[in-house]
Amino acid sequence: MPIFSANQLIEYGARIFTAAGAPPEEARLVSELLVKANLAGHDSHGVIRIIQYINEIEKGIIKPGAKVEVVKEGPSFALLNGNWGFGQVVATKAMELAIRKARVNDVGIVCVFNCNHVGRLSDYTVMASKSDMIGISMANSTKCVAPFGGREKMLSTGPISFAFPSDLEFPLVIDIATSVVAEGKVRVALHKGEKIPIGWIINKDGYPSDNPKDLYEGGALLPLGGDEAGHKGFGLGLAIEVLGGILTGAGCAYEETKRGNGVFFEAINVERFMPVDEFKRRVGTLVRVIKASSPRPGFREIIIPGEPEYMTEVNRLKNGINIPERTWEEIKTIACKLGLTFPPP
Amino acid sequence: MPIFSANQLIEYGARIFTAAGAPPEEARLVSELLVKANLAGHDSHGVIRIIQYINEIEKGIIKPGAKVEVVKEGPSFALLNGNWGFGQVVATKAMELAIRKARVNDVGIVCVFNCNHVGRLSDYTVMASKSDMIGISMANSTKCVAPFGGREKMLSTGPISFAFPSDLEFPLVIDIATSVVAEGKVRVALHKGEKIPIGWIINKDGYPSDNPKDLYEGGALLPLGGDEAGHKGFGLGLAIEVLGGILTGAGCAYEETKRGNGVFFEAINVERFMPVDEFKRRVGTLVRVIKASSPRPGFREIIIPGEPEYMTEVNRLKNGINIPERTWEEIKTIACKLGLTFPPP
Repeated sequence: MPIFSANQLIEYGARIFTAAGAPPEEARLVSELLVKANLAGHDSHGVIRIIQYINEIEKGIIKPGAKVEVVKEGPSFALLNGNWGFGQVVATKAMELAIRKARVNDVGIVCVFNCNHVGRLSDYTVMASKSDMIGISMANSTKCVAPFGGREKMLSTGPISFAFPSDLEFPLVIDIATSVVAEGKVRVALHKGEKIPIGWIINKDGYPSDNPKDLYEGGALLPLGGDEAGHKGFGLGLAIEVLGGILTGAGCAYEETKRGNGVFFEAINVERFMPVDEFKRRVGTLVRVIKASSPRPGFREIIIPGEPEYMTEVNRLKNGINIPERTWEEIKTIACKLGLTFPPP
Repeated sequence: MPIFSANQLIEYGARIFTAAGAPPEEARLVSELLVKANLAGHDSHGVIRIIQYINEIEKGIIKPGAKVEVVKEGPSFALLNGNWGFGQVVATKAMELAIRKARVNDVGIVCVFNCNHVGRLSDYTVMASKSDMIGISMANSTKCVAPFGGREKMLSTGPISFAFPSDLEFPLVIDIATSVVAEGKVRVALHKGEKIPIGWIINKDGYPSDNPKDLYEGGALLPLGGDEAGHKGFGLGLAIEVLGGILTGAGCAYEETKRGNGVFFEAINVERFMPVDEFKRRVGTLVRVIKASSPRPGFREIIIPGEPEYMTEVNRLKNGINIPERTWEEIKTIACKLGLTFPPP
C-alpha cells in the first residue's frame, strides 16, 4: 500500500476539491478533516470519502460554496440552513457559532438542516473543548436501526459525542453510535467476507444473523444494549432522532425522502461554573484515577475514550498513512479527470 | 398487602415529613414525588424511601427547610448549593430555574451540589416538557460501576433523562442508567434469593457472576453495552460523571467522601426553533410510526419509553397502590414515633 504523510494527503485532497469547484478554504477544510479521520485510525471516514464527495458534487448533492444561512437566532441558540454545502463546512460554522454564543451567554445551541455528511462528530466537539468549553453533538441520518423489539429499520445509528477540556495529553472525547455497532463495521465484514457476532443485526424476518449481507437485504442494526438492555439504546436513539431530526427541522430517519445529517451542536462555557484550570485538572484526575485502577482478567489496561485515536495519530504522523492500492487508484483517476497529476507517493 | 389510593399515601407521607420538621410545602412535594414513583411502577423509588429519609433527617444528612442558594448565575446558567435539603426540593427549584432561563434566553442549564437523593430524573425532565421545553438531566452518585475492562467500582450508575413535548397521550420520557442495569435490580434479586443474568456484574476478582451478593462484596456493575460495546456505556458514564460530578462541583463517584447526587439540568425552549404545536405533532408522528412498525419474533409490540409507566399509573390510579406489609409496618412505626396515627387502609 502506498504511504503518504498527512500533509501530502491534505494537499492532494484540497487540490481535487478545488478543481471540482470548491472555494479553496472549503477544499482545505474538508480535506483536513478527512485526513484527520485517517490519522485517528477511522479510515472509513478518511480520504476514501473523496471519491464519494466528488461523485456527489457532480450529481449536485453537495453544492460547494453554498451559503450557510442563519434562519433563526437568539442569545443562546441558532438554526442554520446549510443549503446542501459540504457537511464539514456547515458543521464547522455551526460549532463556531455555538462557541461564540456560549462565550457571551454561557451556553450555545446551534441546529442545522439541509446538511450533507458531516463526518465524525468528535471533530466539532473537540473544537469546543479546545476553546475551554464542553462540546456536545448529536446527529441523525437515514434509517438503519430497528427499535427495541422491532423488525424494521426506523432510526439512524444516532451518534452522540462529548468532548471535555482537561490537562490530559490526549483529548477526552466520546463519539459513539447508539446502535450496537456503527454500520461501517458490518460493511467492513461484508467486504472481507467475514461473519459478524450474533447481536449486531437482525435479518429481514427479525431473526438474529451473523451474515453481514442480511443488513443490506431488509435487515437492521440492533440498538445498543442487546436483549438485556436494548431499550436503553433505543431510548437514546429516539432522543437523538428528536434533537437531530425534529428540533433541527432536518427530518426523521424513517422518512423516505431523508438525506444528509440533521445535527445538534452545543457548547457550554466552563469558565462560568469554575476556573477553567481547576476544571481541567479535575477532569484529568478523574481519568488518571480510572486509568490507574485494576483491569479485569482478560484486559491489559483501561482504555479511555479518545486515547486510542490519539495513539494512532502519534504513530501515523511519524510513520505516515497507508492508503489501500485500490482507493489510491480511484483517487488518482478522479484527479486525472480533473486535470491534476500527483507525484508518486 | 394493604392497598391505598395515591392521595392517601401523599397525605400520610406529607404528615410524616411535616412531623419530622419539614416545612409543609416541602413535605408535600417530597411525598408527591415518592407516590408518583409508586404510580409509575418504580416502587424502589416510592414511599419505601420515607423510612430512609426520616432516618437521614434524624442523622442530619437531610436538612429540611435548607435554603437553596444561587452561587453563580448568568443569562443561561446557574450553579446552586442545595445546602443538603431534600434532593427533590433542590432538584425542583433547579429545573424551575432552568425553565425560567430558557424562557428568556432560549436555553437554561442549572447545576446543583450539596444535594441529597433526588429520586427519578424523569420527574424533573417532564416538568420541562410540560412547559413546552425539552428537558435533559444527568446525575452522578456514589461509585457502583466498573470502567470497561476494569475490575474496580469507579463510576456511578450515571442516569440520563430526556423528556420531549408531544401530542401523545403519555409523556415521551427516557430515563436510563448507563450501567447494564440499575443497582436496585440486583438488590431486588438478592432479597428474593434469585440469581441474576451473567453480564450484569463482576465479582471482586473481576469475573462475571450470577450471584447478586457479589456486587456488595467488592464486585461492580458493568457498563451498558456488555463485552461487545461496553466502551459505549463507559463513555456515557464518564461524560455524566464530568457533567454531574465536576461541572456541578459535587465531586466524583470515586472520591471516598462522595455522597448525594450532583445533578445537571437543562431546558431548551422549543418555541425558538419552531411552533410548539408543530414540534409536538412531529414528535408524536415519529412515535406513532415506530409504534405501528412490525415487532420481531418474540415481541408482541414495540414499547415506547414512558409508555409502561403511564399504563401502570392509569391502572394504579384506578385500582390503588399495593404496599408490602413490611414496608407499611415500618412506615406506621415511624408515624407512631412522631406521634401520628393513620386510619387502617
